[in-house]
This record gives sequence, structure tokens and C-alpha cells, in this order.
Amino acid sequence: MNASVPLPEGFRAAGIHCGLKGGGELDLGMIVADTPRPVAAIFTRNQLVGAHVPVCRDHLARSGGLVRAVVVNSGNANCGIGPRGLQDARAVCRATGALLDCPVEQVLFVSTGVIGAPLPVERITSGLEALRDRISPDGLEDFARAIMTTDTRAKLCSEAGSDAEGRSFLAAGVAKGSGMIHPDMATMLAFSIIDGRSTLDMHMVLRDIAERTWHRVTVDGDTSPNDTVLLWYDTDRWLRGAVDEHGVEQDPCADVLLGLHRRLARMVAADGEGATRLVTVQVRGASSEIEARRVGRVIATSALVKTAIFGRDPNWGRILAAAGRSGVPFPVDGVRVWIGDAELFAKGRAHPENEPEAAAHLREHEEVVIGVDLGLGPFEADVWTCDLSPRYVEINADYRT
Amino acid sequence: MNASVPLPEGFRAAGIHCGLKGGGELDLGMIVADTPRPVAAIFTRNQLVGAHVPVCRDHLARSGGLVRAVVVNSGNANCGIGPRGLQDARAVCRATGALLDCPVEQVLFVSTGVIGAPLPVERITSGLEALRDRISPDGLEDFARAIMTTDTRAKLCSEAGSDAEGRSFLAAGVAKGSGMIHPDMATMLAFSIIDGRSTLDMHMVLRDIAERTWHRVTVDGDTSPNDTVLLWYDTDRWLRGAVDEHGVEQDPCADVLLGLHRRLARMVAADGEGATRLVTVQVRGASSEIEARRVGRVIATSALVKTAIFGRDPNWGRILAAAGRSGVPFPVDGVRVWIGDAELFAKGRAHPENEPEAAAHLREHEEVVIGVDLGLGPFEADVWTCDLSPRYVEINADYRT
Repeated sequence: MNASVPLPEGFRAAGIHCGLKGGGELDLGMIVADTPRPVAAIFTRNQLVGAHVPVCRDHLARSGGLVRAVVVNSGNANCGIGPRGLQDARAVCRATGALLDCPVEQVLFVSTGVIGAPLPVERITSGLEALRDRISPDGLEDFARAIMTTDTRAKLCSEAGSDAEGRSFLAAGVAKGSGMIHPDMATMLAFSIIDGRSTLDMHMVLRDIAERTWHRVTVDGDTSPNDTVLLWYDTDRWLRGAVDEHGVEQDPCADVLLGLHRRLARMVAADGEGATRLVTVQVRGASSEIEARRVGRVIATSALVKTAIFGRDPNWGRILAAAGRSGVPFPVDGVRVWIGDAELFAKGRAHPENEPEAAAHLREHEEVVIGVDLGLGPFEADVWTCDLSPRYVEINADYRT
Repeated sequence: MNASVPLPEGFRAAGIHCGLKGGGELDLGMIVADTPRPVAAIFTRNQLVGAHVPVCRDHLARSGGLVRAVVVNSGNANCGIGPRGLQDARAVCRATGALLDCPVEQVLFVSTGVIGAPLPVERITSGLEALRDRISPDGLEDFARAIMTTDTRAKLCSEAGSDAEGRSFLAAGVAKGSGMIHPDMATMLAFSIIDGRSTLDMHMVLRDIAERTWHRVTVDGDTSPNDTVLLWYDTDRWLRGAVDEHGVEQDPCADVLLGLHRRLARMVAADGEGATRLVTVQVRGASSEIEARRVGRVIATSALVKTAIFGRDPNWGRILAAAGRSGVPFPVDGVRVWIGDAELFAKGRAHPENEPEAAAHLREHEEVVIGVDLGLGPFEADVWTCDLSPRYVEINADYRT
């Protein structure tokens, strides 16, 4: 199914095994643009950052935001190892630039994996030539596989649209999770490419999209030092227009990108470590979108809510108690709580007669919905997460051993 | 061991099975003072509150803070069921007041257990007479057992001291966890009694103690609607003196109470659901105590840190990454991270040579220490938590079923 995800014209990708992961799994990926193209980027807000973050920022500043190639390794975060991390990241960029015959600052190198182990930089630089030889317009799935860590499946998709002038365009994206996933950069990597024309400032578009997609995904509440979202775009008339309240939806390119990122974000939540259910937390009736998102995040982060969903237990009390500690004041008598289509609490009272329907929703659907209406105002937000299973603990107890 | 925990003179306690829990387990407890004594109390800050919270507040206001009896049931939180919850809570207080021949407002009734199920109030009122008949100076352990939910062991202790005039006194306390445990009322119940004299305002003392003990315990980040801390004290010259920066330690009574609550808080962390390790998170070198506590809480709440400890994996990268997302800025090059006595990160570099010693610390001790020095200033805080095991998930997936 994923194998058919095409890249916009002028882009090629590949993934290979260079020796960072065991078992011959793909661990080094590359996307190359035939000519330098502009990139918008967002990085982690963690105080601890992977070495790639300052090097990417430096390169984007020096290249005027133009990028020829993105190289990504999994299996090692190149993080927390002092000046050597910066040297290693720069070495990979230099080798890639030499190979592609482009300035070093047009190369971005990104790492994900274990924190604190020195990067086996020789294995990466030794693999670059084989990687370059494999790049193709059909290579996005291999790239998506090469950037996986504890992900159980590759995450990629594409969406077509037509711009304001009726010209058709294509957007393609790839992401990886699947632990250390939380708002303020839903800890992960995401790369997307769009070849449509837009009058909007794509940096602002990307920030707005991240706010409404990646910042609304949580798996375990932990953010990572390596979170990175990159968007490659293509416009001859990049006007740096501002994104107003409805800008993203009104611009065909931005709207398609929003949908693309929402699909990727949901894939990341659905493939959260140990997850058996994708959970959409619907918050309605809030006084502002910020408050709606805050309540949604607290519910989506609650270990008690997430374990109840794993147990297929329609435990609305935990949903309400999580909302209650979010810091957003609301009168309990005005609140509604639901699971699927079953209303479980309203006007200060439980509705146990609806619990069997709610339990059936949790049992029978891989994508489940839980919701709360605060009864305060017209604002709302959806937040995505997954359930919490014993498998999450096993994966993370054994990650390095 | 616990059976020998004595109560201060003039207090008696008991616990019985009244039919709220299966298997004949104790589920209804009572502490009675021979004469009304003053109580200081702190309740949850959750927007959703158990019915006992407003009723307790009302009674304390009407009685001038004087209390004859505290009755506690487990197995049912009497929460989220509308006006009936308040009626039921008042009914238990009325029945207790009639039985003890005291004004109803001198009775406090507290509930813990499942949210959203109506309280089987008849079982409780039917059990009160048998409960009253069993109260004794040796009854604190039965009381401690009666208030347990998913706790695996009763939590109680006592400590003796002598006051400023050389008169000896006794403090005794009991607490329950063990899920929904988090700062801002480390979700639990705690009851303590002290018969020493102090010139300090015990309400302020209790707030200060809670700040330094209960608000520094976290099991799962979830606060409960029923959190309650009560302190029964006894002073003829209650001067409402203020607690200054060093007040708690300088006053013998308050100092003993601080130690008592710290012991109880650590018991709650050690008995966190599914816990195999008690974890002390040491934060040092912070710019303020508030920042130290904030960093400590984020580390202590990190699912990745807690699963690593369950896996006996000295994964210092996760500790540093958790500190990095706390919102407290610090330069990574000035940070130190340790597990036990093993320094794992300092001056921007890992010390993998010390990891075997750190792994041995995690394997060989039931009480483990992890720490971070931010290198910013002289302030520090300890926060207590436990590791995260698959058993936590199993307990909470199956809690109601």
C-alpha cells in the first residue's frame, strides 16, 4: 500500500542498511532535490538538543534556507556527547556535499535513536555512496523505513490538490515516532515536500500546521532532544504573506499540507509504543482554543485514562478527573463526557446504562473517541494519543539492552 | 511491625469490613478523639471533587475546626454522582454524630475508591455501631488497612519528641496511595495526630509540610478528586504564629511532623501501583527551590525514566532529556547527572565507564537515587516516585472489572 506513495517531481529518495541497527534493518535514508529548494523547519524546544539541531540551523542560515539533500540516520541520536557530536554531524554533511557536488550548507543531517552514545560516523560516511546510487522517485518508503526506531510500521502518505490557478500539485510526507512523543514538538521526525504554488509564507504555514497537528499528539508525555519537522516547498512567488485565522484552510497548498500532516500525526499516535488503540480526545465547549488544547493534552497524557482504554473500561470518571486537574476551571454540573456515541456523564450525573455501548466502542474499534464538553464556550480541539499497554513498559525497559 | 504503632493519648481507632470491598477486606475505618480537638486540613485542587470535600469544609467551618471523629470508607469515592453524593455523606455524618453523641459538624467523613458509583450508604451506616464498639488505642493499623484501595501494605508510623518545655509528645500518622498520585495533593489520604504543644499555627505548618512532602510525591501524574490531608493537634496556647523560612525545623512539634509526613510520603511512593523501586530524584544546583521542584517533578513523572529504572537501565539520557523539557533553562555543559554514586554525565560528556556501577545500584537496591545538578545556583529539592512496570498497567486496566 505504502509502496505507491510518489514523490513530487524533482525529488528522489532511498534508504539502506549502513550498520547502525542490527539484523540488516534500514538505518540510513536520504532525500535529494535535483536543484536546491527552500525549506521551512521547526526544531525541539528541549534544553538538551541533538547535535544535528544547531548544525541544521547553521546550514539553513548560511544557505538562505535552500536545501539539496536531507540525510537521516536511525539507531543513534548523536546527542549528549559533547563537541564530538557537532564534529560528526558536520563530517556527514561534508561527505554528502562532496558526493552531490553541492555546498555543505545545502545538506541537512538529522539523527534519531539512543541518546549519549558516540555516532559511528564512519559507517554512515561509508554508506553514503551506496545510498546516493539507490535514490529514485519510488524511494520514499525505503526512506521511511530507514528513519524508524521503535516504530512498527513505516509512516508515509501523499495528497494531491490544485492551486489557485488550477494547476495540480502533489504533497508527500513521511514521519517517525513512536516513543518520546508529546506536544511542544510531538517528539518525532517529519519530512514533507510540496510542489504547488502558494502566496503564503511557508514558515508561518508550517508553524500553524504544527500547532494543529504535531503539538496535539502525545504518546508518553516525553519530548525528545531531536524533534525535527522539515517542509520542502516550491514556489516562484514566495510572498511571505501572513497566515490569518483562516489562512491555512483558504490556501489550497496549505490546506493540503494541513491534511497531510494530520494524517501523519495520527499515524504516529496509532503506532505509539505498545499501542492497541488510536485515541481521539475531543474537547468541546471551551472558552478558548488554548484551553481546549490544554484540557485535551492532560486527558491524553493521563496514564489512568490510557490504561483504562487498554482495558476496554469506559471509565469516564478518570476522563473527568483528568480534565479537572488541567488548571482550566469549569463547573462540574455543566460538563458532558462521552465515549464513542455513548454519553456517560451529564448534568452532574453518571449514565451507567450507557456503559455497555461505550465498552463495545472500545472493544470493537481500533480508532476510538473519548470526549468532554466543558459547557463554557464555542471553542474546541482534538488531541490524538494511544492507549497504554504493558508492552509500552517492556519496550522502554529493554530499549538499550 | 506496624501493629505496635501507638496513638497519642485520648485517641482510639478501628477498622472493620462493612461490605464495600469483596473478600471480607476491611473497608470502613474510624478515629475518635475523647474530646473535640482542633484539625488542620488540606483538600484536592481538582475541579472534580468527591462529595466529602465540600461537606468536610462545611463542618470544619461550622465547628470552628473542632473534630471528634473521622470516618473513612474505601471501595467507593462518592464522587461524580450529583446531589446524592452530598446527601449520602451527610447521612453518614449524622449517624456517626448520633452514635457518639456529638454535634454532626464535629464528624468528618472521607471516601476513596471508584469514581461515579453511588455510595452503598446503608452498608456504612449499618456498620458504624460495630466500628464504634471496636475502637481502641491499638486500632491504628486496622484503620490503616480499612482505607487501602490498591495499596499492597498499610502505611502508618509514629514518632516521639519533646517540646520546647521538655515535655515529651507523640505524633502518629497513616496514609494511603497508591494510584492517582501526583503533586498538588499527592493523590491520597493522610491522617495524623500530635499531642505536643507548639506556638506555631498548625494550619500553616501543615501547608508547609505538604509542600515539602505530599507535593513532592508522584506515582502516575494523576491527581484525584478526593485528596485529603488532616492533622489533629493539641495545644492550649495556639498562638497562630507564622511559619518563617526555618520555622518548621525550629519548632520541635513541627519538625517531628515534617519527619512523620516525609516517612508516609515515601511509603506511598514505594507502594506505588506496580512499583518495584522507590526512587528519590535529587535536584541540585537550581536557581530557586521552585525551579528545583519543577525539574524534579518532570523527571519523576517521565514514563521513559520510570520504565528505564524498571529495566535496571542506567539511561541518563532520559533523565537529562526530561530535565530539558521542564521549562527551566540551563546550559547542558554545566549539568551533572548521576545514579547512585555513579556520575554518568558531566561537562557535556557521558561517562559510560560508570554505567556498570549505576546498573548495579538499580539492580541491588530497593531504594534508588537518581540526580541532576543544573549548575545554576544553591537551591535543591528531592522528589519521590517509583518505577513504572507492566503491573501498573494491568492494575489500572482491570481496576473496575
